[in-house]
Amino acid sequence: MSTGRDYAALLKEVVDECRPYAERGQLPSYIPELRKANPKLAGIALQTSTELYEAGDTRVEFTLQSISKVFSLLVAIEERGPEAVFAKVGAEPTGDPFNSIVKLETAEKKPPNPMINAGAIAVCSLIPGATVEERFGRIAGLLEGILDRPITIDEAVYKSERDTAFRNRALAWFLKEINCLEGDVEEVLDLYFRQCSILVNCADLARIGMFFATKGINGAGTPLVSARAVRLVSTFMVTCGMYNGSGEFAIQVGIPAKSGVSGGILGVVPGRFGVATFGPALDRKGNSVVGISMLKRLSDLLDFSIF
Amino acid sequence: MSTGRDYAALLKEVVDECRPYAERGQLPSYIPELRKANPKLAGIALQTSTELYEAGDTRVEFTLQSISKVFSLLVAIEERGPEAVFAKVGAEPTGDPFNSIVKLETAEKKPPNPMINAGAIAVCSLIPGATVEERFGRIAGLLEGILDRPITIDEAVYKSERDTAFRNRALAWFLKEINCLEGDVEEVLDLYFRQCSILVNCADLARIGMFFATKGINGAGTPLVSARAVRLVSTFMVTCGMYNGSGEFAIQVGIPAKSGVSGGILGVVPGRFGVATFGPALDRKGNSVVGISMLKRLSDLLDFSIF
Amino acid sequence: MSTGRDYAALLKEVVDECRPYAERGQLPSYIPELRKANPKLAGIALQTSTELYEAGDTRVEFTLQSISKVFSLLVAIEERGPEAVFAKVGAEPTGDPFNSIVKLETAEKKPPNPMINAGAIAVCSLIPGATVEERFGRIAGLLEGILDRPITIDEAVYKSERDTAFRNRALAWFLKEINCLEGDVEEVLDLYFRQCSILVNCADLARIGMFFATKGINGAGTPLVSARAVRLVSTFMVTCGMYNGSGEFAIQVGIPAKSGVSGGILGVVPGRFGVATFGPALDRKGNSVVGISMLKRLSDLLDFSIF
Amino acid sequence: MSTGRDYAALLKEVVDECRPYAERGQLPSYIPELRKANPKLAGIALQTSTELYEAGDTRVEFTLQSISKVFSLLVAIEERGPEAVFAKVGAEPTGDPFNSIVKLETAEKKPPNPMINAGAIAVCSLIPGATVEERFGRIAGLLEGILDRPITIDEAVYKSERDTAFRNRALAWFLKEINCLEGDVEEVLDLYFRQCSILVNCADLARIGMFFATKGINGAGTPLVSARAVRLVSTFMVTCGMYNGSGEFAIQVGIPAKSGVSGGILGVVPGRFGVATFGPALDRKGNSVVGISMLKRLSDLLDFSIF
Repeated sequence: MSTGRDYAALLKEVVDECRPYAERGQLPSYIPELRKANPKLAGIALQTSTELYEAGDTRVEFTLQSISKVFSLLVAIEERGPEAVFAKVGAEPTGDPFNSIVKLETAEKKPPNPMINAGAIAVCSLIPGATVEERFGRIAGLLEGILDRPITIDEAVYKSERDTAFRNRALAWFLKEINCLEGDVEEVLDLYFRQCSILVNCADLARIGMFFATKGINGAGTPLVSARAVRLVSTFMVTCGMYNGSGEFAIQVGIPAKSGVSGGILGVVPGRFGVATFGPALDRKGNSVVGISMLKRLSDLLDFSIF
Repeated sequence: MSTGRDYAALLKEVVDECRPYAERGQLPSYIPELRKANPKLAGIALQTSTELYEAGDTRVEFTLQSISKVFSLLVAIEERGPEAVFAKVGAEPTGDPFNSIVKLETAEKKPPNPMINAGAIAVCSLIPGATVEERFGRIAGLLEGILDRPITIDEAVYKSERDTAFRNRALAWFLKEINCLEGDVEEVLDLYFRQCSILVNCADLARIGMFFATKGINGAGTPLVSARAVRLVSTFMVTCGMYNGSGEFAIQVGIPAKSGVSGGILGVVPGRFGVATFGPALDRKGNSVVGISMLKRLSDLLDFSIF
Repeated sequence: MSTGRDYAALLKEVVDECRPYAERGQLPSYIPELRKANPKLAGIALQTSTELYEAGDTRVEFTLQSISKVFSLLVAIEERGPEAVFAKVGAEPTGDPFNSIVKLETAEKKPPNPMINAGAIAVCSLIPGATVEERFGRIAGLLEGILDRPITIDEAVYKSERDTAFRNRALAWFLKEINCLEGDVEEVLDLYFRQCSILVNCADLARIGMFFATKGINGAGTPLVSARAVRLVSTFMVTCGMYNGSGEFAIQVGIPAKSGVSGGILGVVPGRFGVATFGPALDRKGNSVVGISMLKRLSDLLDFSIF
Repeated sequence: MSTGRDYAALLKEVVDECRPYAERGQLPSYIPELRKANPKLAGIALQTSTELYEAGDTRVEFTLQSISKVFSLLVAIEERGPEAVFAKVGAEPTGDPFNSIVKLETAEKKPPNPMINAGAIAVCSLIPGATVEERFGRIAGLLEGILDRPITIDEAVYKSERDTAFRNRALAWFLKEINCLEGDVEEVLDLYFRQCSILVNCADLARIGMFFATKGINGAGTPLVSARAVRLVSTFMVTCGMYNGSGEFAIQVGIPAKSGVSGGILGVVPGRFGVATFGPALDRKGNSVVGISMLKRLSDLLDFSIF
């Protein structure tokens, strides 16, 4: 399994085999705009140091959603340093759902990790900048540096989230109460909703995965962030990147990954590949059913696991 | 122990005996304005059908805080009916602190009862009215009918709460998410902060207690709300009126009561008395240390318990 | 509604009206022996100071189950004193299911109240006696004094519980860990299972209710326990006697009561009546569906509520 | 940093530097026998494919405690297959303390993962064998195959745990209730206490680490378990091997590891080393303070992290 020809054929096989699993999942109900997606879509892409391989629906655009959490965390660590970040957010997986508020009350008085909503909102509050636009520019700028193209957001999804995200608003005010949210609550939420609404496709995610696999160097060979920041974020992708399904994913696939409720999964095979999947139908933990199936299959075939 | 002379002497004894217990309590830290209170104050008042007896600091003004929850609940039940109210708030004690958010996530998808903050905010959202002023007018109007005087609020406390109540804001948005808060979140919070800031003194509370003891009839003999609504609210005062200290209070004192973090306790001895205490130093559950001591003492002496 | 003739007719009406509600409930699944009950049975009994009125299936025997908790609590308070008891068990309702273990870990390091299983097991460990037989003799002796007849247990239910009560065994060991269970765990559990297996019928429960209504005096006029102990236990019956349905029951019926998963409910109208119901089909909180319906109806008709 | 001489000097430096951190920790209080340890001990060992390097107190014997969980899990996966194991235990980290019972009640009706006590007890119940001795023989046999010497247990610790482990007994009965414990509760607990009492020293743990680093091959070159089983267990060591400090350990050290409350830490640098530390003083999560310090230091120097 060593030539490009092999990869292309392999990805096609994997998509064909796993696409039917979409029936086992469901579109998310709590962001109205996401319900419009076609649940039968399925795509997979693999980026090596030189080539991009892809099969299925890899050019359909979708919003980053929770995948955006890795970029704001990268920026916050780079700009503010790990200590400032970990003063406001913990490093432990929780076993609770992604939008849970329980641990904020019962635990350490900070959100348990930066991959759940509460933690990601706290991280957003640490992104420097005088305005939301300037702060968002830092996150978008990093993505533009990786993808070598301008970034846009899906305005309809952005507005849909902004107007209906009562739970995230509750999380943000709770964070303010426990002194884990810097600045203005509504501005921080605005930044959070914007990053969630950034448009990408599956091929983009594979390129981003390769950026992580090379510890922060983009396709043109330019280092955009420190290797240390990439390693920190990659660690979180292993322990909590797949919500409260991260433990099982570590066993079945064994790579740093981050999923979003719009159906994308960003995967990193350190030193080797970026790998990404798309499939909007989700399991009850919020991960793409088809995506996990494809990554599990590919991990068995290409021996992905870092463990 | 049957004459007015006896009551007056008795109240004085009780205040003198219990005032030193203030040292075991603390002023609340989370509402900055309340920290200005004198923790050594102590007062007790008892209203019979004809006379008011009082001892100690019964004419010092303080804000209703959580005691206000009983008035908005009375108004909501009268104006909307019990079914509409209990569609948005439960009827069970929780054993959790008054400002807890945990049960909202883990339990029945509605706040467990109307005496904790989350439940009281949900109840506020049910008070009819086109504006916050009009809605507040219904609550204030009821109190004016009971006390036969105009109601004012403490503007400094009101502003202090409005600007620092991040936790209540989190609760309100969570309630919005689970469909237990009608209308605009900020308007409902505004109403909630206003009712918390209504100024009373200990003697007022004793009169209010007598209003409950006579099932809703004010000092002039006018029924202001239905006996049924008073009974419903009195029941909640027994099962959850003293936060997560209600069970112990039922055993030690045995009457419907409602405490507030400003140090007041409103007590009802059905068919006999209104009884009230004031003492700003609180135990760790948020109840007045001196107030509970005095009520316990008086309950033993006058056989208050309804059980 | 003042003559005996009226009561008899009234009870019959109430049974006939409420019996169909049994369909809304289910037999409990976790004690195999209880699954053999006929879910359509329904009975109600009312004991005044002189007469017993009854209608429906009031002479069918069933086991006390959780209703037994009030007797061991009475004995423990009488024999050990309230302070010794409340050193090992709290006084607060929880809003959690009757067999919950969560609060043992997260709360005060003692079971929250004596009406949930954990608390009742802790209370059993406080009953004095050199052997299980002697300790059980104290509980059975109290009941024999109230009912003026020998007490027997249902051996099949006793064995069924003893051999399948894994959850109760877990609770008991947890209590041992937090120093809230005196003596040998298996002996205490044996005592607990025995008291749960005591056989009574609905008419018995009404007599027991009258014993509580007269503050501890049996039908022959003999005081068996102190009025203070009865008042303490009655208070718990209000705040937590109906599991996590106690708050709603207080609003709808408003009397001290204790239910058991075998379908009985023991009710107390202080100073007036004992009232009891039977109906094996339970709601999801573990209370008899028909029983609650009948008590609600009767409370409206006879104005039972203590609030 | 490539020669043996370097490693030896390096380990000595690390021990000398980190030994003072013991003062920040405490001996565990809940197993009486463990309180006898000397909290100032500190040792570190590193096993390459050919050499063992060590510094400090690497020859002091201690009991495996929670480190034993990895061996019973290896045996259970080998003997029963992953599916049988994961039918009784989950794969998710929890963020809760190691002896927590809460998730058993609120979560998926199985213990969340095999590295917390509840999960490890469930795993023990899956070890095949007609008697406790035979079952223990499988676990001890694996260790003897790795260490090439007979295994003994510390009888005093074994008896101490067996007689005081009320919490573990509660967990076991709860597991029985939710159908996650096969066979007799006391026998399974006996097996669990025995494996916890196995005696090792720090040098042993380094050899065991190398066994994991080579995917299950012992020093003589003999494969003892499948590479797949080793990978599964190593994954759990990353996500939950350091109790509810696993997330932070992944960030700071970044290797599969398992700690025990007797002060040992077993570490694996896949394909390169086994590494182990010893230091009885624990942080509040139950991990060796000195051990974590030394591993963090060594990871920085030798670039251990798998991320």
